[in-house]
Amino acid sequence: MRDVCVIGLGLIGGSVLRAAVAAGRVAWGATASETDAAAARGDGFEVSGLPAALARAAERDALVVIAVPLPAVEEVLRSLPSGTRLTDVVSVKGPVRDLVARVAPHARYVGGHPMAGTAASGWAAGGRTLFNGAPWVVATEDGIDPDVLVDVLALALDTGAHVVPTTADEHDAAVARISHLPHVLAAVLASVGAEGGPLALALAAGSFGDGTRVAASNPDLVRAMCEGNRAALLTAVDDALGRLGAARGSLASTGGLAKTIDAGRAARRALDERATDRAEITVDLTSPGALAALRAVGARGGQVVALNGSTAVARTS
Amino acid sequence: MRDVCVIGLGLIGGSVLRAAVAAGRVAWGATASETDAAAARGDGFEVSGLPAALARAAERDALVVIAVPLPAVEEVLRSLPSGTRLTDVVSVKGPVRDLVARVAPHARYVGGHPMAGTAASGWAAGGRTLFNGAPWVVATEDGIDPDVLVDVLALALDTGAHVVPTTADEHDAAVARISHLPHVLAAVLASVGAEGGPLALALAAGSFGDGTRVAASNPDLVRAMCEGNRAALLTAVDDALGRLGAARGSLASTGGLAKTIDAGRAARRALDERATDRAEITVDLTSPGALAALRAVGARGGQVVALNGSTAVARTS
Repeated sequence: MRDVCVIGLGLIGGSVLRAAVAAGRVAWGATASETDAAAARGDGFEVSGLPAALARAAERDALVVIAVPLPAVEEVLRSLPSGTRLTDVVSVKGPVRDLVARVAPHARYVGGHPMAGTAASGWAAGGRTLFNGAPWVVATEDGIDPDVLVDVLALALDTGAHVVPTTADEHDAAVARISHLPHVLAAVLASVGAEGGPLALALAAGSFGDGTRVAASNPDLVRAMCEGNRAALLTAVDDALGRLGAARGSLASTGGLAKTIDAGRAARRALDERATDRAEITVDLTSPGALAALRAVGARGGQVVALNGSTAVARTS
Repeated sequence: MRDVCVIGLGLIGGSVLRAAVAAGRVAWGATASETDAAAARGDGFEVSGLPAALARAAERDALVVIAVPLPAVEEVLRSLPSGTRLTDVVSVKGPVRDLVARVAPHARYVGGHPMAGTAASGWAAGGRTLFNGAPWVVATEDGIDPDVLVDVLALALDTGAHVVPTTADEHDAAVARISHLPHVLAAVLASVGAEGGPLALALAAGSFGDGTRVAASNPDLVRAMCEGNRAALLTAVDDALGRLGAARGSLASTGGLAKTIDAGRAARRALDERATDRAEITVDLTSPGALAALRAVGARGGQVVALNGSTAVARTS
């Protein structure tokens, strides 16, 4: 099992370090946060400064996991020894890919995004089981290093996650639709409701409570998440504006909302009735079509659930 | 206790009839649905045709409760004896008020809207406790008959509901914001998400699940509710379009979403932190300022919780 060096020991990075050690790996970390460093050391983990951690990673040919916020990624990349095995856990993938290509083109990079809780932050909020059953997106772009792909798949599966293979751009487009736009719409709906004053809030139905729930989230985290995925979120917002505008036009002209309501119901049923009867397929990661085959699994809503040597085992509908 | 005649024995009307009888009143009903009529009779309730039910109501000076869908209201109004004590439980109030003024101006009408479950329909879906703890909006417009207001307050409180006094227009504006718009936005969000395909649905976060939950509702009921409140819903949709457009503009120009996210969070907190420490006030319903005093209670998010003779007891923050 490959050694793991985690840069950034907040909620996600701290949980990766714990899960890697729990899986029997040699793993260590670095963090700029004195609080997180002290807490991690107090829990018995090895923590050093960034240069020492990266030097050890180079010496042991470890997989480096960047787990710092997006604005801090560039500084870490500038410190990387040439040829480093590299992944990250940042919630947006296109911007990190572009940054690596610009700042550390020598790195052997395969991007990742474990989709687990973000409500709290810091080492203390994490745990070794954070990723159990969670989707861990892995950017299986053409041209990535197949050895590092195996490293990243193995680490993700070791933490209890299942792997969703796709491209960086498709990841960003998808999370804009099903994670970032919901936060924007929840904020808008909450504001429209509150504009109705205490009377409206006193009459608030379950539909309003459900639709505004995530508007209570930590605004700094929501902003970082949404603003970091600007281009893809703009596309999703435009889609929503177009559909809401069409509903408005139909209601104003004919008085009818059938198209909006029926399309929404069909879409929600697609979520509720996702196939649970799944076929198992295997992908030989050394074969020429391996990356395309993995991406096809993700495109169909499937996932990689195990790794036998260089063969990935996937479930898909 | 005044007798009650319920026209329409679906979920809401059937529950009103049951609750009235459970409270010790003489009550009977009429329905055009053979299924509901048979089910109500099978449960031991008195059910007749519309003419017989209304004739008995005239004879006993009963309160007539119209509990049919909006499109069927006009026919009932045309059958009403002059001077009938009248209320309704239709989910939109301005259109019913206008219909009464046009078709049955002789009726002594005070509109109402008990805000209880609408997921299922028909007599079989109802129950005597449906309104326990629910808000029951009563339209306390200037010019209403004070005797009938007392009748309606007493019936609503007898069913276990608390009364929210406001005007028909303010009711319609409020429910557009906190019940009808949430259904429209849920449909839009579901469609935008599904447009991302199986990959997006496989990555769907809790925010997407919450924000689209009511998109699974019975589309006929959602359409009837939303389309029946067309004017007020257009205002709410325009408010949402304006706020979403502003978020789009800010994201595209500066890349920032602070204003949208912060406003949404403050609005959601206003919902979560509604004052629970409430003062009790009383309103003498025979006094000149009674209706304005009641509406002020509703405007502050308060409610009428009891009736002592002609004195209403309200709780408000």
